[in-house]
Parts: sequence; structure tokens; C-alpha cells
Amino acid sequence: MPGFFTNLLQVLRGRRGRDMGFLCRHLLSERGEASQTALAQEIINTYAMMDAPRRLEFFEMLCTEFSPDPAAIHRAAAEYQRQPDARTLGALSTAVEPPRQELIRRINTASRGTETLVALREHLLELPSGSADFSVLDADLKHLFRSWFNRGFLRLERISWQTSALILEKLIRYESVHEINGWPDLRRRLQADRRCFAFFHPALVDEPIIFVEVALSKGIAGDLEPLLSVEAPVLASEKADTAIFYSINNCLQGLRGVPFGNFLIKQVVAELAAEFPNIRTFSTLSPLPRFSRGLRDAQNEHGFTPARLSALLADYARDLTVAAKRRDPVESLFHLLESPLSHRDVLAAPLQRLALAYLTQARRDGKLCDSVATFHLSNGARLERINAFGNVRPYGVEASFGVAVNYRYLPAELEENHEQFVRQGRIRVSSSLLREHKAVLAAWQGPSGSN
Amino acid sequence: MPGFFTNLLQVLRGRRGRDMGFLCRHLLSERGEASQTALAQEIINTYAMMDAPRRLEFFEMLCTEFSPDPAAIHRAAAEYQRQPDARTLGALSTAVEPPRQELIRRINTASRGTETLVALREHLLELPSGSADFSVLDADLKHLFRSWFNRGFLRLERISWQTSALILEKLIRYESVHEINGWPDLRRRLQADRRCFAFFHPALVDEPIIFVEVALSKGIAGDLEPLLSVEAPVLASEKADTAIFYSINNCLQGLRGVPFGNFLIKQVVAELAAEFPNIRTFSTLSPLPRFSRGLRDAQNEHGFTPARLSALLADYARDLTVAAKRRDPVESLFHLLESPLSHRDVLAAPLQRLALAYLTQARRDGKLCDSVATFHLSNGARLERINAFGNVRPYGVEASFGVAVNYRYLPAELEENHEQFVRQGRIRVSSSLLREHKAVLAAWQGPSGSN
Amino acid sequence: MPGFFTNLLQVLRGRRGRDMGFLCRHLLSERGEASQTALAQEIINTYAMMDAPRRLEFFEMLCTEFSPDPAAIHRAAAEYQRQPDARTLGALSTAVEPPRQELIRRINTASRGTETLVALREHLLELPSGSADFSVLDADLKHLFRSWFNRGFLRLERISWQTSALILEKLIRYESVHEINGWPDLRRRLQADRRCFAFFHPALVDEPIIFVEVALSKGIAGDLEPLLSVEAPVLASEKADTAIFYSINNCLQGLRGVPFGNFLIKQVVAELAAEFPNIRTFSTLSPLPRFSRGLRDAQNEHGFTPARLSALLADYARDLTVAAKRRDPVESLFHLLESPLSHRDVLAAPLQRLALAYLTQARRDGKLCDSVATFHLSNGARLERINAFGNVRPYGVEASFGVAVNYRYLPAELEENHEQFVRQGRIRVSSSLLREHKAVLAAWQGPSGSN
Amino acid sequence: MPGFFTNLLQVLRGRRGRDMGFLCRHLLSERGEASQTALAQEIINTYAMMDAPRRLEFFEMLCTEFSPDPAAIHRAAAEYQRQPDARTLGALSTAVEPPRQELIRRINTASRGTETLVALREHLLELPSGSADFSVLDADLKHLFRSWFNRGFLRLERISWQTSALILEKLIRYESVHEINGWPDLRRRLQADRRCFAFFHPALVDEPIIFVEVALSKGIAGDLEPLLSVEAPVLASEKADTAIFYSINNCLQGLRGVPFGNFLIKQVVAELAAEFPNIRTFSTLSPLPRFSRGLRDAQNEHGFTPARLSALLADYARDLTVAAKRRDPVESLFHLLESPLSHRDVLAAPLQRLALAYLTQARRDGKLCDSVATFHLSNGARLERINAFGNVRPYGVEASFGVAVNYRYLPAELEENHEQFVRQGRIRVSSSLLREHKAVLAAWQGPSGSN
Repeated sequence: MPGFFTNLLQVLRGRRGRDMGFLCRHLLSERGEASQTALAQEIINTYAMMDAPRRLEFFEMLCTEFSPDPAAIHRAAAEYQRQPDARTLGALSTAVEPPRQELIRRINTASRGTETLVALREHLLELPSGSADFSVLDADLKHLFRSWFNRGFLRLERISWQTSALILEKLIRYESVHEINGWPDLRRRLQADRRCFAFFHPALVDEPIIFVEVALSKGIAGDLEPLLSVEAPVLASEKADTAIFYSINNCLQGLRGVPFGNFLIKQVVAELAAEFPNIRTFSTLSPLPRFSRGLRDAQNEHGFTPARLSALLADYARDLTVAAKRRDPVESLFHLLESPLSHRDVLAAPLQRLALAYLTQARRDGKLCDSVATFHLSNGARLERINAFGNVRPYGVEASFGVAVNYRYLPAELEENHEQFVRQGRIRVSSSLLREHKAVLAAWQGPSGSN
Repeated sequence: MPGFFTNLLQVLRGRRGRDMGFLCRHLLSERGEASQTALAQEIINTYAMMDAPRRLEFFEMLCTEFSPDPAAIHRAAAEYQRQPDARTLGALSTAVEPPRQELIRRINTASRGTETLVALREHLLELPSGSADFSVLDADLKHLFRSWFNRGFLRLERISWQTSALILEKLIRYESVHEINGWPDLRRRLQADRRCFAFFHPALVDEPIIFVEVALSKGIAGDLEPLLSVEAPVLASEKADTAIFYSINNCLQGLRGVPFGNFLIKQVVAELAAEFPNIRTFSTLSPLPRFSRGLRDAQNEHGFTPARLSALLADYARDLTVAAKRRDPVESLFHLLESPLSHRDVLAAPLQRLALAYLTQARRDGKLCDSVATFHLSNGARLERINAFGNVRPYGVEASFGVAVNYRYLPAELEENHEQFVRQGRIRVSSSLLREHKAVLAAWQGPSGSN
Repeated sequence: MPGFFTNLLQVLRGRRGRDMGFLCRHLLSERGEASQTALAQEIINTYAMMDAPRRLEFFEMLCTEFSPDPAAIHRAAAEYQRQPDARTLGALSTAVEPPRQELIRRINTASRGTETLVALREHLLELPSGSADFSVLDADLKHLFRSWFNRGFLRLERISWQTSALILEKLIRYESVHEINGWPDLRRRLQADRRCFAFFHPALVDEPIIFVEVALSKGIAGDLEPLLSVEAPVLASEKADTAIFYSINNCLQGLRGVPFGNFLIKQVVAELAAEFPNIRTFSTLSPLPRFSRGLRDAQNEHGFTPARLSALLADYARDLTVAAKRRDPVESLFHLLESPLSHRDVLAAPLQRLALAYLTQARRDGKLCDSVATFHLSNGARLERINAFGNVRPYGVEASFGVAVNYRYLPAELEENHEQFVRQGRIRVSSSLLREHKAVLAAWQGPSGSN
Repeated sequence: MPGFFTNLLQVLRGRRGRDMGFLCRHLLSERGEASQTALAQEIINTYAMMDAPRRLEFFEMLCTEFSPDPAAIHRAAAEYQRQPDARTLGALSTAVEPPRQELIRRINTASRGTETLVALREHLLELPSGSADFSVLDADLKHLFRSWFNRGFLRLERISWQTSALILEKLIRYESVHEINGWPDLRRRLQADRRCFAFFHPALVDEPIIFVEVALSKGIAGDLEPLLSVEAPVLASEKADTAIFYSINNCLQGLRGVPFGNFLIKQVVAELAAEFPNIRTFSTLSPLPRFSRGLRDAQNEHGFTPARLSALLADYARDLTVAAKRRDPVESLFHLLESPLSHRDVLAAPLQRLALAYLTQARRDGKLCDSVATFHLSNGARLERINAFGNVRPYGVEASFGVAVNYRYLPAELEENHEQFVRQGRIRVSSSLLREHKAVLAAWQGPSGSN
């Protein structure tokens, strides 16, 4: 609507410059309602020109000026306590809602509003720790984003070589699990035996929100190399019986905490099942991003304490010490792990056991150490298989000594697994892991039960 | 995702039938999270099959079962009162938000979710008065719809003869200001000197939310007939200098109270200004839906009391009594108004004065009687002109003795007009109405000032 | 390219007005090559403004000025006769091709070129008989259209209620088999148990070339009424086992003689077979546009001579004479046929026999009398069933006393049927018609063989 | 239509294998008409599986079996000679048209037909010289392609970073003037101060036919480096006053000889003029692909004979001999041209003169030596400027010692220039080149006029 309000905005600018405080108050005022979109546009444009210090001031203003009125809350709370009914509850509800939320909604009315607000939250989250506390602003943004980015408003789209370069370029940029090394690499990931799907939101044009890369395979793949190699031969899709989800990436930092991944995986499973009736198995091939750090962190009493390490390695003590030419199995292990790819034979079994322990037992702040495991297990997937040397790329060796893991999605057990995991922290493992799982449990809890 | 969860849903149905209480609780539970979309789909499908009594039960359940927990609110309120800070405010905020809102958000995650929820609210609003009180459910739906149908998520589209019949058919159905008499009538309204624009929401496919019909004209049109006539000659658009907004319609009852009209008009003004540089004047030609009722309502002390009627008609008393062959001017007026089209000459002037009084002075429950006036004036438009016999179609005569009114949108004064109207109830009239306006004021307030 | 050549065209216009002879010669000249598209545009625009007499002059000029040079043909022919090889053949080929063809190709280079040329041929074909002979121009247009409208360049599109009103309106206009009575009628023809498909050409935007209407049914429908009735209940498409092609219409007169129908029917059969695996039978329900005329034409010695009529009616003589209360069966027949719907019982059998005779035996100028039969039979369809009173709408009674006929498309016999029909005029009838067919043959050929 | 004709095709295959002779004869036969598309599809599929020797056999068969019947031509020619009228001309026309053309038209009716036929011609043109003579087949294909790829059927599309990677990848492959070095290079060529346009044909999906790359600049650019450099700063498009066409590429060898370039350039000029009112100058920056070969070819008596070389270099003799430390200016020139970039100062002037001579005077087989010059001059452009060292990339130095040339498109003179060039071989040069042009003419023609 620029033309229509050009004069108006020129007057405003003449009077107040591009004073964001004024603009925001005006946008929330009765007077400003008549020109809401124009004011919102002005705020959006002004924000786009701000540098970091200006943005800090702006965040500060948003946090101080547009919070709810404590006096009003006190009054409404007292009123509710006196007579708790629909009316007083409504009044209390209104009193506690920060005017900031309405301000954000109004900023969203103009062109590029959503984009700007998502960027604003990204700026907020990127602030160095030690910055002022803007958590109320962050909470309001997140609250609205969870509503606006409801799965019902997202559009699943297949990404292929027919997709625009503008979007494909963003995949290259956003892929952080298995870096895409330029266009030929991307091209291979979009061929006949690969699939890529993304969620888009109507207000964010040409901007994927989250995407997942899938490889069609025969059987559950445990080795990433054939999936990632640009030269890998293309499998005729009618020969595939399994879909391997090997990379899932959130694209926009500003949407952190708004859950999409669960929906995306399940929707893509449904799409693939419809397109390929032969594909019956759906599994990930996932990284363990903090396994090596976890293993080395002897300080964490809920993690790999020396006693637990010894117990876990007991079965492999001989092989390790012989190979490392040292006396202590733990010391031997760490010695060999300095170049794990040179000791695949001897390391494979102990690494699988340790990884299983890490994924199912090790905790930090009461939670599983591994965020990827947490994600898939709370989606209802089960721990299917642990693959020593499934990811021997440098970052894989660095993060997890090359270990990769399959989480498998079985419709029939999703609800049960999810509930068990969320309520009791119980983790479903495949039957082939059961015996190993018992060994891990025994070692972890030690002779006296819990360590 | 049907295929994927088919088994799961069959199990559920076997266990619980299509028990909506169970489904909704399950959808909100931790266990249900893993199969959210499938559960939401089940709820949506079940709702679609409900008849009116079943729906009533369902609404009741939603109102009773998913409201906030009073004890929790009491606790959170007390805590906040003890120590009002961001944390306790957050907790209070959480406590007052009805779980119903999250339930509604989750229902929205499945296909046709938004459509179903909008229909659900329509069913709610259509309940006969005297039904149980579902206002808390209505409030939750409205709250979410205001967020979801934020103008930033709406898409303006031009409706033309190239639009699909599916959508055009809906215009015919939804047009309630000036009924569209079949396809030839619609066709005329989409020719070169007409424009039609609608807002669409991405989650409601092929479903216009609100639309406006515009006629391009030379000068501000005061007579609807040439605008509505199917045979009216088509004006070459380069000859037009004015755009007349002659009909604006909300389409979905379920979105009542979510404001779109203000945004639509202003956006369309901007679109037209960009397409036709020669068009400088933007005005409506609007109905006065309750003018005849208001004029006849002698009981309303803030309306047309006998004293006010007499005073307003004083200048025309002679003409009226002569024409009606009666003694009393008021009685004469109502006599002539029984067939107003037969007495155009004598009625034109008094009708304009009375309509001006009705639009600017008459109040009911403290508000202007006329909702159309309230809408445009609060958008910042001004009262430009009153046209006796501007709408002589039967429904125009019935509602307003044929009077139609122009509200004019002038960018430079929108904010000022809006603020004056919203804060002080002051109404901006065009200079050509000023003198008449004074006469109305004098007559309305009477010899002793306010009546 | 208007802007670019504006000056040039203004110069041209200044010099020569809009002299079509000059423009066409210029477009074909070397000089004109540099501004081909602009010149073509000028010709197109000028043509659009011509009235009928001007068009006649233009056609005349095209016929006289742009024909091949006889002297050149003579030379090239002589040369070829002297030494028939690739070179002399090429030269002869060039000599016989009218420069008009290249002119037409160049006119086609500008925007709306194809549209204009198709309209031009329509104007040509619409000339009253007795007009000058423009057959060489017509032949050139038809030659190029056959090449340009090659099936490989046509796009099949489904027409539905989601199609634009602009296109749907054209269906209403172009439907000539079973008139569409306004939008509700059209709407019924596009519901779930109906299909409509059209061919489009990329150069003719929003312009269907030919379309076919299909009804999904249980069994081969012999009665049009349930297919055409606006109130007919909608059949769930999964219950259908048959597709009835009940109307096929060419849209553009200017494309007369360019064959599309054969391609369209077979493509639609393939589409339907893919969409509905349950549908195994594909049949038309077709009109007999000249049956009543043929029956009454006693002059045609290859048609219904009195002797043949008598022989054909011999089996029904008693019933007819009783019902008509006359002595002569033929006279009785024609008497009853004055109001055939009042005598359904007695007329059904003789009408079927007569229709079968008409469709398979009656000839005019050596060809089958019935163009619809010729079309489907030469497509390879077979004569499946004759339905007395299958079309009792006034135009059906008028054209064929209410008889309608099913032609059935069976992939396995298409080639054989087509070849038999095209080479030997032999017509394949269904087994249920065989006995009747023999009776017809016997009656037609008479006691002495051929009549 | 595969499903529909599956049985039929299986029968055919059973009987005849995939015998192309049989399939083609069948497709042209009456019998085959009923299943045209299916037969065409079979031919297309069979062709796709052929290796080179098989293709040769196929071409041979097409050339021998589907040519016109000489006897019929003789008859028709004789008939025409006896009585030359529309009928006999029509018959002669029919007799000389090879059945091959109808066969090709029928092959085109099936899916991927056009694509296959274009590929077939590419295979034909790629045959090693010395292969059998298939010129009649080539002529038929070219004849039909000129009709089918009429400019009226082409769609101009802008290529941008929002275009699909599938199409962009083809630009990289087809660009042969200034190689695109991967995606970042391509990306730069699609930024705000660049434009790329292509023609597409509706039957060739995702397949550009020809494309042109344009740089927006201030003034006529004479140096390619800033246009091609990936790091070149982006010019704000409102600052540009000139559009430089720096690369134009035909994509499909199979369409050789079908003219698109002239149309494309003029259409793009019109598009740019509409988008950027500030851009008034349209010029190329073009290569001279055979300049260095031409200069060195002393054998061509219509080219750079020693006498002409001496005369052309007379003005620069001193500088050249000093720089080269040799006695003879021509010898000096060629010595310096071994590393032209090291002698820019001394070579610039003589190179410009020689290039002008090459572009305007040198001929081979009666034609200009330079095909790029021929293309632009016959489009009506003029020779604007010669830029020594305008293209110092290795291939530029190799082909033309770094010389590049601007051809300028001026609407007002296009027709005149085109006609002069086509009829009399006269070349329009810009006023700034006039004096140099005279010097070249004098030197070229020598003391005795023409050499």
C-alpha cells in the first residue's frame, strides 16, 4: 500500500524521524489503527536498516515498554480470586497478555512481516551470552510462531532438480549434518534413488523451513559412504525396500523451538509409502554428535565414570590391551581412539557397546546426552542398530569415532514407544540389540546396582 | 498420512469407537503426541459426520473438560502477587490459558483442520438463542483465528472471468448486499470497468474470505442502478477517474469478528491507484441497512423522537402536508413513505436530512445505529454525500426508502478521522454536507440543547 | 515488439496507409525480413478492423498475387522430366509451393497470429455459396493447420468446475450436440460421475479446440435422459464400469478438416482407464443427425426406396397398420412417426431395424449417409446397439424419431475394424445385432439381390 | 495411451519384432491409422534404443522407401503442362510431396515425438563426412521444423536464479561463446544487472531452444572482462543506459538452419526497452571466430593477400618493425601476434584496421568470412565499434588476437541496413568508423582498384 499512504508516512517521518518507539506506540494506538499496514511497513523497513547496537536498543524498548501492566494483573487476579468465573478469567487472561504480542501481530500485517519477525528472533538468539535478558520478548515471539507455524499451515514440497536454483542454493547453505559440497553433490542427492522434502510456510516465499534427505536402499543401510558418494551408482527405485532418512535440517534459527521434525518425518514416510509400495522399512542413519565428548567426560557422574568404562570394556579388555600394547583397557581404548580408522577390527565391538551405553544410559542435567536420540525416540522411533564406522568422514570420526546409528520408525509401536520414553525415559531397542542392552545395563549399574 | 497410521487408528476405533472425548484427551496427552496428525484427522472426520445434537454434546464437552484448572490459577495468581516477576507472570500466563486452545491448535495440524474449525465456529454461532453458553469455546476459537488469519497471511487476489467457476459460484452465494442474479449478472460485474478482489487464506483452498466489488466511474456515483444493471454500457477504463466500492461481503460466518474489511479496502485502493493513475477518488456507495427501522422506532430516546422528527422536518412541513393532504408533517412523511418512489420530488430533501441525522446522531446502546457507517467511519473514511433514491431496488426501498450513501477514503485524513471517531465519536462530513449537518444538529438537540 | 518498431510502422503508415497488398508484399520481401514481426502485427491488426467486403478484397488479393509462378513450374517440371533426381525434384517442389504459404507462416510470427489465421479461414468458409473461388487459399491454410495442429502439439486438459469461467462459457457456446442450458446444466455435466476433456493448442490461449463429454455409468447407457438431466443423482464413481461418450464437439470452424476427434477419444479412453481400473467398457451414445431426412427421401435410389421400406417393415406390418388404422404399412409408419412418442410400443422394433439399415446400408454419393457413424466406424469402433427412444428431446425426435446409437471402442479390434471399413466399407456390428443385421441385408437387397 | 493399446502392440511385436520398416509402413497405411499414436510411440521407443549402425540403416530406409513416386510425378507434371489450373497444380503438389513428410508428422503425434525427431536430425548432421547422402531426409525434417518452430509457437522466458536447476544446467552445457565455469559463474550472469532470455517450444519441455545473455551497462562496453568476471560489482539497474548482448547460443543441433536468433534479439530488445525506460542503446559485444585464421590465410585471393596486408599496415609500418625488430611490417606483425597481449600498444591500431577489413571486405565462396557478422548485419544491425583486446581470454586471443566487436541495433535503420546488406552486400558502419573504413577500402582495392 505504499502509494496510498506515501503522504502520511512522509508527514510522520518529518515529525518523528524513524523513531521506533514512536512508531510502535502509534501502531498500537487507536489513531494508528487506520494506517496499520503502512506503519507496520515503516517499522519493518526501519528494522532492516538497523545495525547491531540499534537492534539492542530496540529489543530493550520492546521488553520494557510493551509488557503487561502489573497493577492491572493484580486487580484482575484479585477479582478472579474473589469470584472465579468465565468473565473474571477472561479479564485475567487479557491482563496477563503482553501488549507486545498484539504489537507483533500488527507488525506482521505488512509485506515481509513474518520474515522480519523470524529474523528478529534470530538476532535475539544470536546475542552473545551475557547480553541483557530479553527472554520475555523471545517468549512472545515463540508463542506466536508456534501458533502461526502450526503444521496445518505448512506445505510439504518435494525438492528435486527441477526446483529453482534459489531454493536449492539454500539447501546447500542450510545442510549442516552432511555438508553438500557444491552443485554436483547436491545433484546426486536429488537423483532417482534419493528424495528430498521440505516444509514451506506461505508467508515465507522460496524459504524452506526444514528439510529431510532420504536415500532409497536395499535393507537398512549402516554405512553413510555409499549414500553420500557423488559417484555412487543409482539404484533403480523399484529395487528398493527401505527408505533411509540420513539428514534432517532446520533452516531458520529464528524458529528454534517450534517443532517441525516429527511432522516432517511422518509425512514423508506416508508420501514414500504411497509412491513406493515396495518400501516397507523406514529408518534413519543418524549421527551421535556428542559421543566422543561424552566418552571423554570423566567428570559427569551420570556419564562414563572410570568404573563404568572398565565394566563396559571388560569383555574386550584383552583385545584392546594387546592392540594398544598397554596394560589398562581404558587407557588402551583411548590410545586406539586417537586413530580409530587404523584399528577397526579391534574397536568395532567395544565402540558399539559404548555407543549403546551413551545413547541409552548417559545423562546430563537429567536428560539423555544425545539430542538426536532424544528427538527420534520421543517421536516414537526405536533404536534399531549401531554401526561402528558407519560415518568415517572426518567430522564423523571427530564427533563419534565413526559410529552411526539407525532409528527405525514402525507405525505400530510409535505411540507406545513415545509414551514410554516421555513418561519413564524407557527406550525401545530392537531385538538384535537386546542382549547387548542387558550387558550395558549390567555394566552401567555396577555390582551394587546403580553406580 | 492415512496409510501410515491405518493400523493404529483401527486399533483405536476397535477399542473406543469414535468417542470424541477419548480422541481429544488422547490428542492432548503425551501418548497421543506421536500420532498427532492421525488423531487430529480422526477428530476432523468424526466431526464431519456429526448431526446437530451430537455437535451440541461435543461443544459441551469442549467447554467443560478443557478449561483451565481453577486451583492452578489460584496458585499461580497467589505466587504472582507474592513476587511479581517474569517467571511468575509466565506461570500465571500458562495457568490461565485453556488447554482447549492447545487442543484446537492440534486439531488444526491435519488436513482440512482449519476448514473444520471455521465450520465448527459457524455451527456455534448459528445455535438458537437460548442454547447453553459456549462463549468460552467461542472466545478460544476467535482468539486463535485472529492470530491465524493475520493480514500478513492473507493473499489478495483479483477475481475475474478467468477465475474458476468453483470460486465464482461462491461469490454468487456469498453476495448479500446486492444479490447476484445468476451468471450473466456476475459476468457484468467482472467486465473491464468493474473490479473484484478477495482475500484468501492458504489453509482454505478455493475459499474467499471477504470480497469487494468495485465500479470504475466518472465522478462519484450516487445511483446504484447503472452500476448493477446487466445491460449497462462498459466504460473505457481510461475514462474513469473514480472507483466506487459498491459491495463488500464477508464470506465465512465462522470468522465473524476477525477484521478483514479495513485491510481489504485499503489494499484495493492501493492496487487500483497503481493500475489506474487517472483514478484519484475512492468512495463507496453504501446501504443504510436499518434506516427505515430506525426512523420508525419512536421508543428510542436516543433516536427519532417525535420532537426531533418535527424539528428535522420543519423546513419541509409545507411541501409534505400539501403532498400528503394531511395536517401533520410527520404523519404526512410516513404516509408518503408508504410508496416513496411515487413522491420523489417532495421526499428527496427531507429524506437526505433524516438520513444524515440517522447516520450521525441516532444511537442505540451508546453506539451509532448503522453498522455500515460505523465500519467505514472507523476505517477513517468521511461521510461524503447522501443520495435520496440512490438504491430503488425493493430491498433498498425496504431498508432505507431508497437512500444510499457515499463514504469517501482520503488518505490524508484517514488517521485523523479514525481517531476522532473512535475516541470522541466525532464524524467527519464533507464540506458540501456541512450546512445540512448544522441544521441537523440544531434540530436534534432541540431548543433546550440535548433532548 | 510494438515500442521498438513504432517509428518504423508510423513511417510505413504515413507512406502507404494500411494497404494490405503493400504490407504483404513487404513482409515477403527481403527488405521486410528485418521487421517481420512488426509487419505481421500490422497485418493482423489491419485484418481485425476489416469488414466483410474488405475481407473479400483481401482474400482475392491473396489468391491472385501469391500463387506459384506457372512459368517457373513449367521450367522445373521440364527439368525434372529431363533428369529426375533429388536436385530437380527439390526445385520442382519449391516451384509448386505457393508463396502464400510462406506469407501465412510469416503472419503467424506475431502475437495473435494463429488466432487471426484460424478466424480468417472461418470467414472464408462462411462465405455464401456463389462467392468467388478461394479454394487455393483455403487449401494453403488447411495444409499449414494440419501441420501446426499436429496432435503432438495439442495438450489434453480436463475441464472441471475448477476451470475458468472464460473457458466454461465457451463450452456452453460450442456444445451443439446436446445444448447446455446455462450454468446449472453445465455444472451437472462436470460432477463426480461426469468427465469432460478438451484439446488445447499452445498458440490459442483459453481456447478449447475440441471437447468430449463423458458419463460414468453401470452398463452401456441407451437412454440419454438420465445423462442429461440436471437433477440426475450422482453415481459414486467406484460403482461405474462403463464410460459413455455422449457428446463430442469441434469448437473452431476455421479448423474444419483438421482431424482431432479420433485422437481425443482414444486419449480420453486411456486417461479414464488409468483413473478408473473398474471401467472396462467404452462406448458412445450418439445421435443420427439425418436419419429422419434419410427415411423420408424416397428419391435416393441408394436409400430408402419404397420397395426397401416395405421389405424392412414386413415383419411389423400388422402391428403398424392396426395402430395407425390404415392399410399400408409404410403409410402407417409415417403416420405414426408424426408423433412417435405416443406410439413407442409399436414403433420401437421397426425404428431399430430402419435405423440399422440407415446406418449400415443407405448411401449418398457413395458414402454412408450418417457422418457420425462414418466418424466412429472409421475410428475402428463397432456398432454396438440401437436404442429406440434413446433421445426423446425435441431435437432428437426431429432428427431421428428419438433413436440413439452406441458405438463401442474395443482396443483389440480397432485396427481391423478401421481397415475393413476404410478399404471395403464393411461395418462391424456387435453379436447382439447380427441376426437383425442379416434381416436388414436381406430386405435391403431384395429378392433379386441389389435393388 | 499405453494401457489402451498394450495388447495390440504385444501382438505386433510378436509378429514382427521391432522391425522399423514394418512399423513405418504400418503407420502410413490405412490400417495403422486407427492406432496411430500407439504405433508412433513404438517407433519412438525403438529409435531410442538404436545404436549408431542401426540408425544408419533406419536413415537409409527412410530415404529409399518413403520418397515420392517418380512415375506419379511424371504423370502429374505432364497433366499440369497440358492444362495448368488449380486442380492439376494441386495434384502435382501432392505428387512431389514425399510420403516421408506425412510419416514424420505421424511420428510426431506421440509423446516425445518432437524431441525424438530433433534428436534424429542431430544424429543425421553428426554423421562423419563421407557417409551416405541423406539430404532428402534432412530436407524433409528441416522443412517441417521450420513450420513447427514458427516464431508464433515459441515462448520467450526470462531465465533467472529462480529457474529450475534442470534448465540452468542446460545453459551451462549449451553456452559455447563464453564458457560458464560452474554455478557461481552462472549465478553472476543472472544477477540484477544481467538478463538472460530463452525461447522455449511447447513440445520440448524444460528445453531451451536458443538463449541470449545480456549485461546492463553505462555506455557501450568494449571490454568483455568486466562482463564475465564473477567478482564484477553489480551495477544498480537504474544507472544503466545500455544493454550489451554478449552471448547468444543455439541449443539444439537438430534445429540447425531454423532461424531463431533474429527474432530473439528483437524481442529481447523490446522487453528490455519496456522494463528499463532509461536504456536506449542496444548493442552486442561479439566475437570474430575466424579472424586469426582469415588473417593467416594468404591463399584466399578474396582475403588477406600479401599486397593487401602491406597496404593495410602501411600507416603502422614503422611502429611494427621497431617493436618487432624486423624489417618487414607484415612479418613484424605476425611476429608480434605470437604474443599479442605483450604488445598491446603497438598492435591495437593495426588490429582494429585489419579486423575492419576482415569484417567488411574479406570473402570466401562469395560470402563474408565471419558468420557472426553475417548474422547481425543481415538482422539490420550496424558495425559500431571494433575493440582491440576486448576479449583477452585464451579463446579470444586464439580466435581473434583479442579483438571484439560491437554490432548496434537501431530500430530506425534496421530495414534499410538489412536490405542493403542482403541485396548488395553493403555494410553500414558507424560514423566513428567511417574514416577508417575509407582507409580500409583504399588499401584493400589497391592502387588499381580491385586487387
